[in-house]
Amino acid sequence: MGISQLPPQPVIYIIEPFGGSVRRQNANLPHIFWDDAAVTRGDGVFETVLVRGGRPANLDAHFKRFARSARLLDLPEPKKEQWIDATREAINDFIHDRGISQGKELPDAKCTWTYTRGRQSTGVPTAWLTLRDIDAEVIDQRKRGVKVMTAPRGYSITQDVSEAGKSSESAPWMAVGAKTLNYAANMAALRWAKQHDFDDVIYIDPKTSQVLEGATSTVIVVKKGERLRTPTAGGQVLQGTTQKAIFDYATEKGWRCKMRDVYLDDLLKAESVWLVSSVRMAVRMTRIDDEKMPAPSNEAEIRALINAAMDAKLS
Amino acid sequence: MGISQLPPQPVIYIIEPFGGSVRRQNANLPHIFWDDAAVTRGDGVFETVLVRGGRPANLDAHFKRFARSARLLDLPEPKKEQWIDATREAINDFIHDRGISQGKELPDAKCTWTYTRGRQSTGVPTAWLTLRDIDAEVIDQRKRGVKVMTAPRGYSITQDVSEAGKSSESAPWMAVGAKTLNYAANMAALRWAKQHDFDDVIYIDPKTSQVLEGATSTVIVVKKGERLRTPTAGGQVLQGTTQKAIFDYATEKGWRCKMRDVYLDDLLKAESVWLVSSVRMAVRMTRIDDEKMPAPSNEAEIRALINAAMDAKLS
Repeated sequence: MGISQLPPQPVIYIIEPFGGSVRRQNANLPHIFWDDAAVTRGDGVFETVLVRGGRPANLDAHFKRFARSARLLDLPEPKKEQWIDATREAINDFIHDRGISQGKELPDAKCTWTYTRGRQSTGVPTAWLTLRDIDAEVIDQRKRGVKVMTAPRGYSITQDVSEAGKSSESAPWMAVGAKTLNYAANMAALRWAKQHDFDDVIYIDPKTSQVLEGATSTVIVVKKGERLRTPTAGGQVLQGTTQKAIFDYATEKGWRCKMRDVYLDDLLKAESVWLVSSVRMAVRMTRIDDEKMPAPSNEAEIRALINAAMDAKLS
Repeated sequence: MGISQLPPQPVIYIIEPFGGSVRRQNANLPHIFWDDAAVTRGDGVFETVLVRGGRPANLDAHFKRFARSARLLDLPEPKKEQWIDATREAINDFIHDRGISQGKELPDAKCTWTYTRGRQSTGVPTAWLTLRDIDAEVIDQRKRGVKVMTAPRGYSITQDVSEAGKSSESAPWMAVGAKTLNYAANMAALRWAKQHDFDDVIYIDPKTSQVLEGATSTVIVVKKGERLRTPTAGGQVLQGTTQKAIFDYATEKGWRCKMRDVYLDDLLKAESVWLVSSVRMAVRMTRIDDEKMPAPSNEAEIRALINAAMDAKLS
């Protein structure tokens, strides 16, 4: 592959964690040391933000969850202005690097914030963001949807151990609800799915068939009569920023949106079922295990609703 | 701090994953890219090997577990000769860098092998090893022992979901038994313990008080009559390489060693209880929650046994 065919490089900004400078990092050079806790322990948090038409989407919700994740891991509070300024600087560079002139259509891009406990030898957190093009597969899935496999998560969070007469404070350090870098199990599930001709995985409780979440996304169920449902967040279900943006917008438009216990059967009987996440946005499930999920008559309307919900959150 | 007071730098070797070259990496320069799966997903495996008197300890057992972890994560099989050659090269450099002349006593050192899925943009695994001095705290704990807090793990592995009538193959991608980089929960438990005047954590099942393992170590119970016990490995308990080396050696010396279900009560009634791991080797529990664990009369004998077990595994 000639140098001209290489995909364009991401824009990377290093963020001094204590409110200091923000500086551009050459994407051809590594910047993470061997003793960074992200590398040795997966000890850090992240957020992924959609950038659409040069504007970050759902920024407040992402920063709020980012700060919450950091708190749950005992990391120093990230500085909001700093992360947002760095995001905007990266967007400017991205537009400039790609030679996109003012007014021209900018393709969707993906901004990832990462914040780690840092190097063992310095004790200073490491923080950076990357801004890059969206994978072709993601763009493709937005159009054609995904075939999903249901699967048990393989582990369950047992923070509430009240059956043993102890309080739910017994494992108070468990960073439940933190979006950490510990995704090896999810990645393993996705590899397994792809080896078996699926595109994605949704976790269910194998005993009750209760639906939890996708491997990297939130489940939204569309029911007759303009109703949306999503599995109740908390415990094993991460609160979805994209799901919340969609619910907020749809509620304004007169839809009835509820967080509920959702079961596999609810998915199979729904008008349509979607996996939502910040960058892929919304992909419709075209198959769940062996069940084909035909396109609903209101597919275009749902897509328009979701697009409008994200557009309403651009800043 | 003047440059002369900086701790000596580790020796780092980068390993070409497909059996190619091994090269020294300058420890003052980062070598891990922003899109390495180790950083973005904790998607990789590791082993830590004690180096004593310039000789790696328990090399075969470590390599075996390393290769097994890699297999469980669908990583290409690591090449044994390559990792062992790199380890020996690093040891030579380490001795040379520190100006330790032949025949002089070399302090214990810590060699960590890391093997990740690599950069998303290249698809080639990343592999390296580091060799460095052992933390002063670890040396100190070997002498004075540790105060441990018992705690629920906060999650349980539910690979066996036979209660739902499904086979235990329902989550076959779960890398149970793999030593992955996903240690954020363990690190959180250790931080919590340290905030509460403990040195370490052992995980127990909150319902049954069954003992699982330490946050980064294996539990060994010493009982009257030269008997050793350790919790049965598998599921939530990683097979310990150091525990196995000790059991092999002690069995040869006439001790009766068994893997068993172990309960909190067994710890409290034991002659002594130890946390064993490759680099810290063996530290005696001097307190478990609120219970003081007085030194047994045979403490020196147990230490000698463990030391001899490790010495027998030097190569």
